[in-house]
Amino acid sequence: MRQYPRPLNKLINELSKLPGIGGKTAQRLAFHVLSLSDSEVKSLAESIMYAKQNLHYCSVCGNLTDKDPCSVCEDESRDRTTICVVETPQDVLAMERIREYNGLYHVLHGAISPVEGIGPNDINLKSLIVRLQGDSDVQEIIIATNPNIEGEATAMYISRLLKATGIKVTRIAHGIPVGGDLEYADEVTLLKAVEGRREI
Amino acid sequence: MRQYPRPLNKLINELSKLPGIGGKTAQRLAFHVLSLSDSEVKSLAESIMYAKQNLHYCSVCGNLTDKDPCSVCEDESRDRTTICVVETPQDVLAMERIREYNGLYHVLHGAISPVEGIGPNDINLKSLIVRLQGDSDVQEIIIATNPNIEGEATAMYISRLLKATGIKVTRIAHGIPVGGDLEYADEVTLLKAVEGRREI
Repeated sequence: MRQYPRPLNKLINELSKLPGIGGKTAQRLAFHVLSLSDSEVKSLAESIMYAKQNLHYCSVCGNLTDKDPCSVCEDESRDRTTICVVETPQDVLAMERIREYNGLYHVLHGAISPVEGIGPNDINLKSLIVRLQGDSDVQEIIIATNPNIEGEATAMYISRLLKATGIKVTRIAHGIPVGGDLEYADEVTLLKAVEGRREI
Repeated sequence: MRQYPRPLNKLINELSKLPGIGGKTAQRLAFHVLSLSDSEVKSLAESIMYAKQNLHYCSVCGNLTDKDPCSVCEDESRDRTTICVVETPQDVLAMERIREYNGLYHVLHGAISPVEGIGPNDINLKSLIVRLQGDSDVQEIIIATNPNIEGEATAMYISRLLKATGIKVTRIAHGIPVGGDLEYADEVTLLKAVEGRREI
């Protein structure tokens, strides 16, 4: 016996494929799984299959959902004049957590990155244009892509693309995080903060 | 939408129950699972169920196995005069890695710990006695419990228990750092420990 029984080896192997899970951690997780009750193990395995089988992208906004259209697109109480463009479903949740934004979303599932060979056609952008053509209510597009090179390039591309439509395109502000320290802010952030200054 | 769709929430919740997996890591793993192909997800979920359903303890030595008796107990080429007593199935694998020991094993699944209320009857010890009564070939018991208080107490208990039988009881040497863990010992240290075993 130079290694574990086959079912255990297979499990360790599968677990070690997960991001951030190395061989030792996979082994620890595998033994933990074996220590669980049958129903707990069943629940874990089923939740994995269930999530994969029941989650897909909303045909309207591209967000992760278990029904189509998603709960946000379907919600009649939301402000249909504003669409916030984000990179990932995680970003939608981040926006929701501020409990202030009540408009709709559009999830790009990525950002334009010439270095990585990701062009406008590789992200969920075409559907935004189609969506705007079929919906005359939209008055503002808030671009909330990440404040890095790819996010900025994507924001710039979208703003140019929508120039002809007359819809207002805005970008979330860059600046010093609340609770942050001016001393430790990087130059670019501080520059953006100064450029974006407002009268008080 | 103040939280993720239900199937995703369920998955994140299940994953965050695993040891060392917090909320953020569970979320990252869940999104990774969704990014996998259907067959990869199926393979992961099935390996969990498969391991739980097909692994059990060997009726002879108590080691984890997918058949009974296990591959070590069944192996006719192994030295049946020696039994190495370890705490966990991981320790069996650690012993096997030194490629020197060719005897049998007995897995206790724990160690005697009065502090935690674990007595001799709470570990897989009785079956060792039964095993020795039915098997007159055994000439030596090597006790390879961890070199900590619980492991030492267990070693001492077993050596006293077997005194009357006349079987030689040895303890692996303290080549392993005291307070360390057998599972994480390197092969050379563990080999030295086996070579330096003394009668107790």
